[in-house]
Amino acid sequence: MAKTKANRPKARLPRGFADRTPAEIRRTAAMMDTIRDVYERWGFEPVETPFIEYADALGKFLPDEDRPNEGVFAFQDDDEQWLSLRYDLTAPLARMVAENFDRTPKPYKSYRAGWVFRNEKPGPGRFRQFMQFDADIVGAASPLADAEICMMAADTMEALGFARGEYAIRVNSRKVLDGLLSEIGLEADDPRRLTVLRAIDKADKFPLPEIAKLLGPGREDESGDFTKGAGLDEAQTAKVLSLLDPTADRRISDDLAAIGEIVARCGYDSVIVDPSVVRGLEYYTGAVFEAELTFEIKDDNGRPMRFGSVGGGGRYDGLVGRFRGEDVPATGFSVGVSRLAAALAARETAAETGSGPVIVTVMDREAVPQYQKLTTELRAALNADGAKVPVEMYIGDSGMKAQLKYADRRNAPCVVIQGSNEREAGKVQIKDLAAGKRAAEEIDNREDWVAARPAQVEVDADIASIAAAIRNILQ
Amino acid sequence: MAKTKANRPKARLPRGFADRTPAEIRRTAAMMDTIRDVYERWGFEPVETPFIEYADALGKFLPDEDRPNEGVFAFQDDDEQWLSLRYDLTAPLARMVAENFDRTPKPYKSYRAGWVFRNEKPGPGRFRQFMQFDADIVGAASPLADAEICMMAADTMEALGFARGEYAIRVNSRKVLDGLLSEIGLEADDPRRLTVLRAIDKADKFPLPEIAKLLGPGREDESGDFTKGAGLDEAQTAKVLSLLDPTADRRISDDLAAIGEIVARCGYDSVIVDPSVVRGLEYYTGAVFEAELTFEIKDDNGRPMRFGSVGGGGRYDGLVGRFRGEDVPATGFSVGVSRLAAALAARETAAETGSGPVIVTVMDREAVPQYQKLTTELRAALNADGAKVPVEMYIGDSGMKAQLKYADRRNAPCVVIQGSNEREAGKVQIKDLAAGKRAAEEIDNREDWVAARPAQVEVDADIASIAAAIRNILQ
Repeated sequence: MAKTKANRPKARLPRGFADRTPAEIRRTAAMMDTIRDVYERWGFEPVETPFIEYADALGKFLPDEDRPNEGVFAFQDDDEQWLSLRYDLTAPLARMVAENFDRTPKPYKSYRAGWVFRNEKPGPGRFRQFMQFDADIVGAASPLADAEICMMAADTMEALGFARGEYAIRVNSRKVLDGLLSEIGLEADDPRRLTVLRAIDKADKFPLPEIAKLLGPGREDESGDFTKGAGLDEAQTAKVLSLLDPTADRRISDDLAAIGEIVARCGYDSVIVDPSVVRGLEYYTGAVFEAELTFEIKDDNGRPMRFGSVGGGGRYDGLVGRFRGEDVPATGFSVGVSRLAAALAARETAAETGSGPVIVTVMDREAVPQYQKLTTELRAALNADGAKVPVEMYIGDSGMKAQLKYADRRNAPCVVIQGSNEREAGKVQIKDLAAGKRAAEEIDNREDWVAARPAQVEVDADIASIAAAIRNILQ
Repeated sequence: MAKTKANRPKARLPRGFADRTPAEIRRTAAMMDTIRDVYERWGFEPVETPFIEYADALGKFLPDEDRPNEGVFAFQDDDEQWLSLRYDLTAPLARMVAENFDRTPKPYKSYRAGWVFRNEKPGPGRFRQFMQFDADIVGAASPLADAEICMMAADTMEALGFARGEYAIRVNSRKVLDGLLSEIGLEADDPRRLTVLRAIDKADKFPLPEIAKLLGPGREDESGDFTKGAGLDEAQTAKVLSLLDPTADRRISDDLAAIGEIVARCGYDSVIVDPSVVRGLEYYTGAVFEAELTFEIKDDNGRPMRFGSVGGGGRYDGLVGRFRGEDVPATGFSVGVSRLAAALAARETAAETGSGPVIVTVMDREAVPQYQKLTTELRAALNADGAKVPVEMYIGDSGMKAQLKYADRRNAPCVVIQGSNEREAGKVQIKDLAAGKRAAEEIDNREDWVAARPAQVEVDADIASIAAAIRNILQ
């Protein structure tokens, strides 16, 4: 299959996509198990939808993308209908509930984790494929449902090891903003509303004078790109900016007051009413939530910064209703899995590397049958009673030095060695690789090393003795 | 957001896609945990690639699809380059290893589970999105690697509860077929080779005379569709068919003999050399494997049939090499997750339904604050010490009857009820729903029912007493 270089495909990933390492997969899986446990304890059950939906069923609700098929990956089916890769987990849930409306018990509480896709310009830490972990309640109009979502989000953060004070679940209502916009003359169908909303949503990225530009005439960024503003006058702009001013009189709506009361009563003081939260998605109709990590990390230039948002959500009473011609109350919360995993990784004092496999080396090729029998029996012995100890025989073609290097790269705790001398004597050598590394730092003379044989033990070649010696090293 | 009916999108899924139920998700997750444990014990580590790749990096290796962009979902990136949704997990792994070749320890043993996509005509049990669970060894040319994959597949089947005799890992080598094809005059670059291979691969679906048509002039199916044949003459056809004849002299190649020896030596008598295994994928270059469940189930017409294939794989020395201009030895195995989950479900004596949440009902609206406090404290009490008991308060708007119906649909083990009488007396009622159903079948008279109050207990309204009563019901 050899090809000339010009003919060969290039081994590369498209921009905005990434492979996942063992450490990343294991860390994320452990985190998701924790989240799943919390959601199950609150009475939510797992439900999943496929990755591909009809484009019209998903609708167009992405921030910053008002053109058709922008922001999503779309393609035509063989019957010419447009299909899209899902861009979040909420729109497909709405489709699913609408499709099975009458046989769904309500309130309907479900959760799901899954990859979503955005056909957007990738950047540092900004991928075109990322994972979300959502929980939703459909069919409950009461602020109790919104409060429950916020409290469950708080339980989740604490189950993951964030203490009160290290995180906040900030909650607001779109109704606060709606009231203010009506006061300044932007009625419900005014297209400037969405522009205002997205300007406020940038308040964590830009200082207030920049937000004022987005509310007013527009803003030019460092690269010279111009973002059209909402065209508000100065008085209107000042009134909108007052939402972001913690010293200004706080506006509140009925639903927000009710949520605040419920969470206070249940003792969730990390759930905080905050009128600056808006969330960029157009489909929210009431309460909106944001989960934020408040502790500081260093940015790329070593300056301290808040870790920031790791998830959010809100009430979307119109999303299921799109299919039915009447609103269906719904509220939910979505965890940004990669962001949260990054936060947990940033807090870990030492990266958990996990132990690699015990490796049975191949000293002489003719003895492969014996090495293999040893490997099979050792795997059974070390993994009895639910223990989990990876064991493998080296199956490459290289010599002893390369095998020890391989063991090192695999993070093996120890290797099993049996040459013909040992075999005749009914013995095996077990080399403790971690202890060996420590010893190598202390002994710098080959004779002392050979005399001391540090971190290497000789044991009888029966499985029980070998397994015992390995267990000893693993402890 | 109300829309006229004509404007409304329809809530429906594209053909060949499906939503997943809680039972399906939980059953599959448990199965995958078991598989993962086996793979880890053999020294394999988790690695994942993204869903989207450059089309040229994936190549075109799907069976029955030789036209460009047939069989895969493909779309153009904003720079006009073609992207594809992955159709398996092997081609992306080859891209990843080629991209990181020098820093990858070899032999490189990894595993991954993930969804893959085929843009094909869906049918019963045939989806356009399905899950695979793969394990691969890259960088080991030895039959030891192929044998290891087969033995690990056997361990996997047994860890899942299939006994020896209920499954078989059948193994063959493409070299057997290659030798035979050369003998009958089809050289290595003859395009008829692929047609022959795919004809043999259909031997589990069609009787031999139909295979003979596919090897010879071609075959017309019931619907009148014509599949072009390989155009072999009768003598050539007879020679190819002899591969499928268990009474004919068995052909074997060196690699296959070596694999047979290794698995016999290690005591894996469920790994069986079988010259009829070919696998439909073009990229295999040596050993090919098939995992088959040999026990019988009933087909749709009630007739007994073998469950059949739940996975397969083989050696693909050219797939990483496509990127490098030289072959790189590689071998792997892929589990068809849905097929295997269906097999496990078919064997389960009773479907595991799992218990739903304990539900705190809302008897009077004014007391919601108390119900909520009770729910929060009860959740903490019942989930102490790692126990997992879902607890929720009813958050809908309906009355008591609807709440009990909701509890029933949620499969709740019990509900907690407190009306004003109970509250004044410092009591709560706990209703055991399963016991209630059993009692309802025995008592058919309302007076007896009221007198006996079956399956309902009154306890003191402190959390410890309520939790104790619920634990009692759960046991």
